[in-house]
Amino acid sequence: MSDIKILLNESDIPTHWYNVVADMPKPPLPPLAPDGNPVTPEQMLAIFPGPLLEQEMSGERWIPIPEPVREIYKQWRPTPMFRARRLEQMLGTPAKIYYKYEGVSPAGSHKVNTSVPQAFFNKMVGINRLTTETGAGQWGSSMSMAGQMFGIEVRVYMVKVSYNQKPFRRSMMHTWGAEVFASPTDMTNAGRAALAADPNNPGSLGLAISEAVEEAASRKDTNYCLGSVLNHVCLHQTVIGLEAKKQFEKVGDYPDMVFACCGGGSNFAGTAFPFLADKAAGKKVRLVAAEPTSCPSLTKGVYAYDFGDVSGYTPLMKMYTLGHDFMPPSIHAGGLRYHGDSPLVCQLYNEGLIEAVAVPQIATFEAGVQFARAEGIIPAPESCHAVRACIDEALRCKASGEAKTLFFNLSGHGHFDMASYDKYFAGELVDYDYPEEAVKEALKRLPKIAA
Amino acid sequence: MSDIKILLNESDIPTHWYNVVADMPKPPLPPLAPDGNPVTPEQMLAIFPGPLLEQEMSGERWIPIPEPVREIYKQWRPTPMFRARRLEQMLGTPAKIYYKYEGVSPAGSHKVNTSVPQAFFNKMVGINRLTTETGAGQWGSSMSMAGQMFGIEVRVYMVKVSYNQKPFRRSMMHTWGAEVFASPTDMTNAGRAALAADPNNPGSLGLAISEAVEEAASRKDTNYCLGSVLNHVCLHQTVIGLEAKKQFEKVGDYPDMVFACCGGGSNFAGTAFPFLADKAAGKKVRLVAAEPTSCPSLTKGVYAYDFGDVSGYTPLMKMYTLGHDFMPPSIHAGGLRYHGDSPLVCQLYNEGLIEAVAVPQIATFEAGVQFARAEGIIPAPESCHAVRACIDEALRCKASGEAKTLFFNLSGHGHFDMASYDKYFAGELVDYDYPEEAVKEALKRLPKIAA
Repeated sequence: MSDIKILLNESDIPTHWYNVVADMPKPPLPPLAPDGNPVTPEQMLAIFPGPLLEQEMSGERWIPIPEPVREIYKQWRPTPMFRARRLEQMLGTPAKIYYKYEGVSPAGSHKVNTSVPQAFFNKMVGINRLTTETGAGQWGSSMSMAGQMFGIEVRVYMVKVSYNQKPFRRSMMHTWGAEVFASPTDMTNAGRAALAADPNNPGSLGLAISEAVEEAASRKDTNYCLGSVLNHVCLHQTVIGLEAKKQFEKVGDYPDMVFACCGGGSNFAGTAFPFLADKAAGKKVRLVAAEPTSCPSLTKGVYAYDFGDVSGYTPLMKMYTLGHDFMPPSIHAGGLRYHGDSPLVCQLYNEGLIEAVAVPQIATFEAGVQFARAEGIIPAPESCHAVRACIDEALRCKASGEAKTLFFNLSGHGHFDMASYDKYFAGELVDYDYPEEAVKEALKRLPKIAA
Repeated sequence: MSDIKILLNESDIPTHWYNVVADMPKPPLPPLAPDGNPVTPEQMLAIFPGPLLEQEMSGERWIPIPEPVREIYKQWRPTPMFRARRLEQMLGTPAKIYYKYEGVSPAGSHKVNTSVPQAFFNKMVGINRLTTETGAGQWGSSMSMAGQMFGIEVRVYMVKVSYNQKPFRRSMMHTWGAEVFASPTDMTNAGRAALAADPNNPGSLGLAISEAVEEAASRKDTNYCLGSVLNHVCLHQTVIGLEAKKQFEKVGDYPDMVFACCGGGSNFAGTAFPFLADKAAGKKVRLVAAEPTSCPSLTKGVYAYDFGDVSGYTPLMKMYTLGHDFMPPSIHAGGLRYHGDSPLVCQLYNEGLIEAVAVPQIATFEAGVQFARAEGIIPAPESCHAVRACIDEALRCKASGEAKTLFFNLSGHGHFDMASYDKYFAGELVDYDYPEEAVKEALKRLPKIAA
């Protein structure tokens, strides 16, 4: 009988991250300060350590992964790649479907691929305290685990509504020794101002970022960490695609199309960028970002300089954006509710090197359930977007008779998202129309420099 | 740098299960009907398929694993074995600690190792419907996944109090297509009688078993499945220990001591029995079952014939028992709240071939948190018992300077048990004294044949 999993040895864990900047047709557009001038390293060093800042601005193709980071990676890497034979059969498609599974990490998703090096490089420069924000808790728990591994204190500002509604990710963070506070708190100016205006403020990711950044900027011993969007975050995630390429080599196959869900962009970048290197070298491969129809930054946004957060505290980044204060509908894939996207992903999309599709919520859960019934694993709602996009292509192959090789990244499991599956089964999920008017309004508030 | 994980290939998945009966000093004592005579195969065939019944009574050392079962096993097997280097360091012990991790299965525990063959052998004899019971939901979800894989309808009777308090395991079962009902239901005589006596009956595992067995016995097209205790269930779990032995061989090591938590006994049996074969051949290895001090069947029970369930519906089995209607304190390791133990495990314990330790609840969570902070993975409360027992031995090694090789099975992850970690952090967990009086009372109601 044939193999289901394509496994690598620990010695196959990449020794270097792949930096897509080296293969981009044009250099990446720099982040700008509100005055329109590029942000200076000095400004960034207040909250980020030097080595991460170097990575953020590097044009080197290969950036070495420090041994202590590789040692921690070994707790879950290399992650398995699966040939989805049972799903292929269920769909009756001539396509071959492969998926890589990042849910085997202790935190249950790909996020730890970057939280671990972020903790490491901070430790390296003598930082023993980190702040970060989290919505539903995927990133906060990943950062908590990484902090624990390097003896760094982690303080997580968790959006209050999630803090109350999703207690179990919070419990994970406690288990890994982190402090978790419901944001807005009374510990920062940003938090106190929000509470003064409305004592019942339910919090938002933008506000939590403000609190985490404010604390990091005000304390010499404390830095700040971000879980997506930035170049160095995308860089760290390339271990996914690099391993996948080795795994394809091992079975003598290569994907015609690569799918990954795309919120802030780090999961898509980590999965697709290493294949983009092959594309730059002449190989034919299509790279498809899957985003929600309710928050379709790549497929419906405008390409402009905008803030990374709701409140406008971050530098301006050139992104496909729906407007920094656009409030996406409450879909269950919380990790995809972001108004913009990684500037690297956006620039490559703008240059036509990658593609994007938008998929509606109910169809993503349909795909997730079909996947779980075939393959066992229950995907996170975010990952269901990639599953949907891949199944749609497999069904097109069925109609056309093409035997394409399809690949997607299953970025995490759904163990902490079963309430949303319940809603799906109860028929309580809704598909949100593209919020055209709200986006139009939000885009009116693009910063002036945008043009 | 050194390896953390010891990985096998899919071709290393065992081709045969190991039947410890072949290496037992005396043949296993048979289950008895209430009249004191051995239960006949005919009686058992009403609810179990022939091939499983043959396994239940077999004395063959090796029983082949059918290819379709091995194909499904490939979705998560071979499971990784880890060298717990970070934990060793944290403890400062000269002992080497290894653990095997069964939480990588889609259902999150070792239970699917037996639910899959149980579904397969039922399908083989033409059964398309299965009933089973579940408490917190580990077994019910494993059986649901297995049913889905072989196109078998699964109906789960879930103890009502868990059905209401632990909705997410129920959601998993729905995702895999099973029907789940809060027991007692009005669909069986047993359920209706319970509801007539008390419309607010919160249910119990014993009552849920009664409902599941009643339905299976009353319908020709329906069989019944059990998740532990029985010989064939222990048999299927031996894939754990068999793989572990190969993994030790791969690194040129061998355990001095093997630890596994023990409730109904299948996890302990699956982990330890393959090492017992070596012991029978003269090798020195100690096999230690870890049970809760609040429900210490091996360490405090009496060795007698008793019912397997609270209500007295099952055949009598020779077990270390605390009395079939003994109600264990409400510890969070629900899977270890069982008055008896697998008859095979009990007989081997009686013959001095295996050992047992009892550990208190709070200390198990302390061990679980320490483990999570060192190794990342958050263990299920049941698994925390094995972690505790192993850490205790590692600390004894530290005191004595012995460099023993220790091994335990991490039977599942704690993603659905974070509420109990919350209680631990909040200081709300209690250690129950050994309920001596309650056991004394329950033992007065041992069936007459017991002597």
